[in-house]
Amino acid sequence: MFGWHWLIEWQTPYEFHGHLIDKVLAEEKTPYQHIMLVEFTRFGRGLIIDGKVQSTLFDEYIYHELLVHPLLLSLPTPPTNVLILGGGEGATLREVLKYKSVKKVTMVDIDDKVIEFARKYLYEWHQGAFDDKRTNLIIGDGYKFVEETKEKYDAVILDLTDPIKDSTSYKLYTKEFYEKLKRILNEKGGIVTQATSPSFSLEVYVTIYNTIKDVFKEASASYTYMASFDGLWGFVYGGVRPDLISENEINTRIEERIDGQLRFYDGYSHKVSFSLPKNIKNEFKKITKISTDEDPIYVPA
Amino acid sequence: MFGWHWLIEWQTPYEFHGHLIDKVLAEEKTPYQHIMLVEFTRFGRGLIIDGKVQSTLFDEYIYHELLVHPLLLSLPTPPTNVLILGGGEGATLREVLKYKSVKKVTMVDIDDKVIEFARKYLYEWHQGAFDDKRTNLIIGDGYKFVEETKEKYDAVILDLTDPIKDSTSYKLYTKEFYEKLKRILNEKGGIVTQATSPSFSLEVYVTIYNTIKDVFKEASASYTYMASFDGLWGFVYGGVRPDLISENEINTRIEERIDGQLRFYDGYSHKVSFSLPKNIKNEFKKITKISTDEDPIYVPA
Amino acid sequence: MFGWHWLIEWQTPYEFHGHLIDKVLAEEKTPYQHIMLVEFTRFGRGLIIDGKVQSTLFDEYIYHELLVHPLLLSLPTPPTNVLILGGGEGATLREVLKYKSVKKVTMVDIDDKVIEFARKYLYEWHQGAFDDKRTNLIIGDGYKFVEETKEKYDAVILDLTDPIKDSTSYKLYTKEFYEKLKRILNEKGGIVTQATSPSFSLEVYVTIYNTIKDVFKEASASYTYMASFDGLWGFVYGGVRPDLISENEINTRIEERIDGQLRFYDGYSHKVSFSLPKNIKNEFKKITKISTDEDPIYVPA
Amino acid sequence: MFGWHWLIEWQTPYEFHGHLIDKVLAEEKTPYQHIMLVEFTRFGRGLIIDGKVQSTLFDEYIYHELLVHPLLLSLPTPPTNVLILGGGEGATLREVLKYKSVKKVTMVDIDDKVIEFARKYLYEWHQGAFDDKRTNLIIGDGYKFVEETKEKYDAVILDLTDPIKDSTSYKLYTKEFYEKLKRILNEKGGIVTQATSPSFSLEVYVTIYNTIKDVFKEASASYTYMASFDGLWGFVYGGVRPDLISENEINTRIEERIDGQLRFYDGYSHKVSFSLPKNIKNEFKKITKISTDEDPIYVPA
Repeated sequence: MFGWHWLIEWQTPYEFHGHLIDKVLAEEKTPYQHIMLVEFTRFGRGLIIDGKVQSTLFDEYIYHELLVHPLLLSLPTPPTNVLILGGGEGATLREVLKYKSVKKVTMVDIDDKVIEFARKYLYEWHQGAFDDKRTNLIIGDGYKFVEETKEKYDAVILDLTDPIKDSTSYKLYTKEFYEKLKRILNEKGGIVTQATSPSFSLEVYVTIYNTIKDVFKEASASYTYMASFDGLWGFVYGGVRPDLISENEINTRIEERIDGQLRFYDGYSHKVSFSLPKNIKNEFKKITKISTDEDPIYVPA
Repeated sequence: MFGWHWLIEWQTPYEFHGHLIDKVLAEEKTPYQHIMLVEFTRFGRGLIIDGKVQSTLFDEYIYHELLVHPLLLSLPTPPTNVLILGGGEGATLREVLKYKSVKKVTMVDIDDKVIEFARKYLYEWHQGAFDDKRTNLIIGDGYKFVEETKEKYDAVILDLTDPIKDSTSYKLYTKEFYEKLKRILNEKGGIVTQATSPSFSLEVYVTIYNTIKDVFKEASASYTYMASFDGLWGFVYGGVRPDLISENEINTRIEERIDGQLRFYDGYSHKVSFSLPKNIKNEFKKITKISTDEDPIYVPA
Repeated sequence: MFGWHWLIEWQTPYEFHGHLIDKVLAEEKTPYQHIMLVEFTRFGRGLIIDGKVQSTLFDEYIYHELLVHPLLLSLPTPPTNVLILGGGEGATLREVLKYKSVKKVTMVDIDDKVIEFARKYLYEWHQGAFDDKRTNLIIGDGYKFVEETKEKYDAVILDLTDPIKDSTSYKLYTKEFYEKLKRILNEKGGIVTQATSPSFSLEVYVTIYNTIKDVFKEASASYTYMASFDGLWGFVYGGVRPDLISENEINTRIEERIDGQLRFYDGYSHKVSFSLPKNIKNEFKKITKISTDEDPIYVPA
Repeated sequence: MFGWHWLIEWQTPYEFHGHLIDKVLAEEKTPYQHIMLVEFTRFGRGLIIDGKVQSTLFDEYIYHELLVHPLLLSLPTPPTNVLILGGGEGATLREVLKYKSVKKVTMVDIDDKVIEFARKYLYEWHQGAFDDKRTNLIIGDGYKFVEETKEKYDAVILDLTDPIKDSTSYKLYTKEFYEKLKRILNEKGGIVTQATSPSFSLEVYVTIYNTIKDVFKEASASYTYMASFDGLWGFVYGGVRPDLISENEINTRIEERIDGQLRFYDGYSHKVSFSLPKNIKNEFKKITKISTDEDPIYVPA
């Protein structure tokens, strides 16, 4: 029998990928987004927001480790106070809490339903992180939070949905927003953002890099293959240069700073992830666009 | 934004139809089948079993009225004791209970989960029929029930899933099974079965007619367009000849026998439904196959 | 092996149907449209324009006979001079040429590539009609032709693509256009137009009827199931009332007026086609919209 | 308007990817396979065989360079006599002919239609390679050729379709076949095969490695992301150890041995391509299967 219950994820108007769904576990249309929790035939449990796979049990650890650790390990001193925008599954939080030095992690997510779903269904993701006494969970608008907070952070982690036209998140990928972020960072602090897919939106990936480099001066870009995203996925780090740190030094700092196991990230994966394929690396020389409030970048749709 | 959550119903290996799903209301994998209740964008609430749309709020009344009434109205005397196999939504039951003469309706469905779903989510379908005191609901195997029952019925209504290879239902479309049915019918009783799609499985439709005619001698076939099934749908009646009853007589009998409103079926719709399109009617002269236990008919898959 | 080469026809943004393609025979992007000739697994040879199945060998005869004959047979006197707008396959022309009385058929199609394809690949459709000496083939804009022609016609047949927003054809479904048509008709002449799908665009179907009735006073609507269009298909006739003609009279007039065989249309099919399903008939009482240049009707897209 | 003309490539029965097709350039069903040449919206010109994208103008150079050069550059002495099985597009041939030392390249492809299509439509792929005087093109069965040839080769390149059940190619991925290959290799010769997708058929990728290692003792595996294959793609080399050669040495040997430009492959890409992601590398410790004639490996289907 042919499969009949499908998520059809549109990467662009001329490409789609069908993932067979075994079962829908929970679904809710909130004021902000359409959330669905499913069992995929291929990936096991997975979170879908507005038709995009956010993360699945199959490879969420790759995404979340590569988002968090290159930033936190390349800070000159171990981080104490960390801010996460988005990241509703709780897995980014889980990774940050592995740092012995961390005293407080503020996580701001706009949608309490996502958090509620995560608590109820995504234990493998958060592993109890929401209940850690260092966790400061705020339901609210991340953009506004950044404008209003009086605190300074060692690191800010942007675990957001893609910059889709007319979405709420595209404004969190502009030069103006990164400048706001800079103001709430400690002097040697850094940021990271998920940076969309070098496979399906290479121009967006490079533009995010250009924009962060423009604001923070120091920037670097990593990538990995994410099966559940059907292609390569990118990350951009600002204010720090993880790409300049050696394989061995990464292994040493993991030993020193982290309590608990990493499944993907280590010195070896660090080196692999910062070695962009030549065809992608070449684009960094060609694309010069910067994303601004006036002329923001969007993923194709 | 493009739709992303789809039921892809395969009519054949070379045809599929995608229906956008707004929300999944409930889902269960029972020992017998995979049941899903959804809100379709186009049809509103709908029941899906094993990837096939069973019925939707949009046009279930057309299907259920055309299944039940041509049979019960063409019986020479109003029916007292009726048997339904399948029909888990409760809508076939609802239609039968509209007959003033009916004293008992036995409904046999193999899957208690379907009934549970219907009670919980499909009020518009059953409209309380499960709680009517004339209703005798039995969870069990319809085939076995027919073999073992000691009762005689005025009418038997087969509201089953399609005869899919390796399914449990294909055995309820054979000559041998219809002969078993004949034994539990009162002398002037009749039967009806849903008869698959004249659009996508014309040979099956005609073969069901041939088989029922072979056993019951009297047989006739009706059809209608069902939007939620993406094509024409067929019904075959045995032991009676509704096609020979006039438009006016149908209207008279509705008046006499039925308590409550019909939305689709009346003398006019009767005439329309028994007037098969010429291209389909022609096939009845060409296809001579009969479905037997040894050489059963299946829908293409 | 699963099928991999598909036409995915979008009926609406929330419904699509996939037809497996065996082979592409010819394809061309003209200044007006994207034409593709294929062998479908299910339907055999078929013409696709801008992603919509125009007609297939499987059931083109049903469409073309039901478009042409109710109009031409219900004219009080046999037609002499007929105008066709669109109809590039040549099958509408083929049907018109069956009338013994016809002296001249003018066919105006905007796209010479469609005609070229038809001549080369669609012999079963046109059966040489383009070369009939009564045929007057004009490559040009039908709208403009109607405005400029000095001739009068007994019948005008509109075999056009659907009224899609921003297409060239939607202007040929408005009150203003029908008024232009009226001016080039002989006193007792009539028109017919394909009227989209009562399944997928019921409001458009009824609105076309309303608009034609408004202009011509006399109007009627027919329908049939078209497998290759995945649903019901509608036609609206103006200036004549085929629905009032009896089954027998249709058979008599076919005998008198037509030279050659009809495969679908006869007195019986006439009756069936003008007996709209009750659920569709009911909509004619509810929908009162008229299509005008200022507020035209479109199919959903 | 939504896209309507699609290649739906099934990676597994529970995953498919849709690529929009702009135009079909040529199509033929040969005794061996169904070949289609298209313009993809995303990739430009591409070759499809039996529903699988074989290569596209977008990234064929990555595939072909990574297939050919790690093998030919890691041979201790520059190759003279090379055998290619498959590779109908002519691009593998193109890469081999860049070696100054090469005197003869025998290419054996089973399907002359593929070659004919390549000559006619794929100039960017072969760039005239079929007409090079060192090219020895043979239309025939590669398996049989290997059994019957009297020649010895410095290198054998297997550019074949995937090992699909009941296909002709799955027998060219077994231990017994690799042993046949070993017999026609010069003493220090080596082989390479495309090794399916580490994303969609990881077990097959590792099993090919295991099988080649079992026969040739020396083996290594590379990978790259191929957008037009929707995921990672793998290669396995036998009889040589390209992974042990340094970045600089690769650059030196390219300089020495190759005449003409490479677009993707250089010392840097070499290092990247032999640095498997940790999650994939880990599987090499777990999967121990070897493919044999009796128990061959297949891609999921």
